[in-house]
Amino acid sequence: MAQGTGDPPHVVIVGGGFGGLTAAQSLAGAPVRVTLLDRTNHHTFQPLLYQVAMAGLSPAEIAQPIRAIVQRARNVTVLMAEAVGVDLEARTVSLLYGGSISFDYLIVACGAETSYFGHDEWGDAAPGLKSLADAVDIRERVLIAFEQAEREESAARREELLSFVVIGGGPTGVELAGALAELSRFVLERDFRRIDPSAARVLLLEGGDRILPSFPRDLSERAQSQLGELGVVVRTGAHVTAIERGTVTLGNEQIHGSVVLWAAGVRAAPLTATLGAPLDRSGRVLVRSDLTVPGHPRAFVIGDAAHLDGKDGKPLPGVSPVAMQQARAAARSILRAVSGQRALPFEYVDKGSMATIGRSRAIAMLDRVHLSGFVAWMAWLLVHIWYLIGFKNRLVVMITWAWSYLTYRRGARIIAWHTARDAGSAFQKRVP
Amino acid sequence: MAQGTGDPPHVVIVGGGFGGLTAAQSLAGAPVRVTLLDRTNHHTFQPLLYQVAMAGLSPAEIAQPIRAIVQRARNVTVLMAEAVGVDLEARTVSLLYGGSISFDYLIVACGAETSYFGHDEWGDAAPGLKSLADAVDIRERVLIAFEQAEREESAARREELLSFVVIGGGPTGVELAGALAELSRFVLERDFRRIDPSAARVLLLEGGDRILPSFPRDLSERAQSQLGELGVVVRTGAHVTAIERGTVTLGNEQIHGSVVLWAAGVRAAPLTATLGAPLDRSGRVLVRSDLTVPGHPRAFVIGDAAHLDGKDGKPLPGVSPVAMQQARAAARSILRAVSGQRALPFEYVDKGSMATIGRSRAIAMLDRVHLSGFVAWMAWLLVHIWYLIGFKNRLVVMITWAWSYLTYRRGARIIAWHTARDAGSAFQKRVP
Repeated sequence: MAQGTGDPPHVVIVGGGFGGLTAAQSLAGAPVRVTLLDRTNHHTFQPLLYQVAMAGLSPAEIAQPIRAIVQRARNVTVLMAEAVGVDLEARTVSLLYGGSISFDYLIVACGAETSYFGHDEWGDAAPGLKSLADAVDIRERVLIAFEQAEREESAARREELLSFVVIGGGPTGVELAGALAELSRFVLERDFRRIDPSAARVLLLEGGDRILPSFPRDLSERAQSQLGELGVVVRTGAHVTAIERGTVTLGNEQIHGSVVLWAAGVRAAPLTATLGAPLDRSGRVLVRSDLTVPGHPRAFVIGDAAHLDGKDGKPLPGVSPVAMQQARAAARSILRAVSGQRALPFEYVDKGSMATIGRSRAIAMLDRVHLSGFVAWMAWLLVHIWYLIGFKNRLVVMITWAWSYLTYRRGARIIAWHTARDAGSAFQKRVP
Repeated sequence: MAQGTGDPPHVVIVGGGFGGLTAAQSLAGAPVRVTLLDRTNHHTFQPLLYQVAMAGLSPAEIAQPIRAIVQRARNVTVLMAEAVGVDLEARTVSLLYGGSISFDYLIVACGAETSYFGHDEWGDAAPGLKSLADAVDIRERVLIAFEQAEREESAARREELLSFVVIGGGPTGVELAGALAELSRFVLERDFRRIDPSAARVLLLEGGDRILPSFPRDLSERAQSQLGELGVVVRTGAHVTAIERGTVTLGNEQIHGSVVLWAAGVRAAPLTATLGAPLDRSGRVLVRSDLTVPGHPRAFVIGDAAHLDGKDGKPLPGVSPVAMQQARAAARSILRAVSGQRALPFEYVDKGSMATIGRSRAIAMLDRVHLSGFVAWMAWLLVHIWYLIGFKNRLVVMITWAWSYLTYRRGARIIAWHTARDAGSAFQKRVP
């Protein structure tokens, strides 16, 4: 539908993650004006966030300025702005600190954030991993634990400082636990004089009866045994009832951990609640089969912010292939609408999934083929380097990985001074 | 002098910069115990900090964990701890948040910090560049200015947002101004839709009668003309009398700048004041010719924290070659003392100095040879890559530079979300 003014229709995309960015790229050069809003100025390659958290990669290696990515798409304008509300009737998106932007078509790709299932007060004691800032925060907590242990006189306290707890046995929790064990066993091993970093304990807690429940049972088991080889202790059926700084409570039991990480749940970003659309328990919009908001054929919701059931009747998972395929479908539907055709239902093509556990260790499910160990890890490596945006990033990440593979060194082990200073005060405040 | 206990003498080094790190490396394997204290966990390659501030490199590319660097020196222990006082009589160094460490020999290599000459209140409005945290802060201020301008409706305000002021015409100020001009003219040029980043104005203010006063007059002039080619406006004889956020006052004149950077002065880190030794106006310890504190032959002060006159009667400059040569001399003197010999006076061997202005632009003074332009820039490039610590860092920095040289792209253009959010509020608060 062309606009009354003669201007090409205006598509506003909220979010520069996998979904929003792919939507913008799909609309590049098309007869629409596109405005892409993101609260930061960069796209983050989320599947490698855990590598930043564990000092394997540095932030710039998995982030790219959104402007640079869509530089050649002259019909795409990027604005660094945080969308805080959507008025579907008035067709406007309101921005933080005032101002709003009107649209003819809308794609909400605002993604997900960490969910503590009603216990937001756990956030400070057990950070989640959804952004580069989270990753850097986790990296500093982990590195500082080792530094504090090296300064500690009491053996009991040293042991306590070298105890890490990861909550949640999904892919992120498994990656974090595996990378944490590797960091202590291989990378830091020769760097300290007073402590033995490889004595660090890594505990992975999962509420269900097995880790990686979205994978077939045989792959879950192989993942668990690979984690075991790295020294990670896995406890299933572990229901967390409380978290305070340094302590996780499971019913009557208390577990100490100098660093506690939360990888047990996500929910849609709060913007979805402003749409006035039906939501699921995780705040995701229950979209129609063509990804539109019920009753609003010009408003699409995609990726982690959307709830759409797959062929098996279960909601599609919050992974990048879903977001990217939905982005292409939404872009196609908008272009069809502009030329007067009706939208088509979305169908997800599942090309497989994988989870990495550590150096040379992973599991992969490609159609009916189940892989584990080195072969799965090579597959994981190739896919992740391939999808990294920007030739330079691919090259630098490849060198960085080859370097740490061969030397067991990690370059991104930086603690900023202000954090170090804050940590110093923790020496005093620490509860025995 | 061997210790009564039979233990090897204990050398405490304060600071893991060029001086402290070189001292530790010089004492590796020697018959002494060494403890190296630093308030962070990493060594920063300071000559390239301005590259981080201007998004050319990311922090991990110019920083290395100190533990990893001295990993093989089994007689060296690294502790992340901030020294806050020295008692030369009791031979102890006291640490922030309690605790102290005793020494037989001491090397103070605590470096310098930004000095506002009695106007510390200018710090928030005009940050200096002495640490990675400073560099990231400056990077975000600069990138946010462009993002805000892209969102701005008023042309006058856009122009204001794209005005940058650098105070201080020494090497750091020249590097910052040059890199800032390049960032706006080449890197960001094609990334925006509403603004023309190359219309950004960069003003370099210098109090003296020429920039780079430590270089011969002909090289100063060549540097100024190279800055001019990049569009930097240089004003000499400019005496700053006040700074507030967004405004620099020179007597009766007010200059607006959305980002103001301070590169006009440094002073020794405050630890020097606790030594009870004679200091110069910049807080540097007036050391004896053998780099010891007068009256304390076991306590050495080196690098930016020390004041020692060179052959020309002027104090040695605060550059890494001075710090590194002094570190080796102090280490040698300690080993001589341990074996009963007396310390030798320090003599600085000046191998030349250089300053970079931008892509293909630099000046260099190597003995009597004065270079400028591309040749000087190539010399600068080779020297800086050569001295970067770690083979991987050299390789990655080389690739990063080659990449940005060929494509005019810079990968490290990241604004963290919390900063973006704070900047959003600045949209509202901004004074017209």
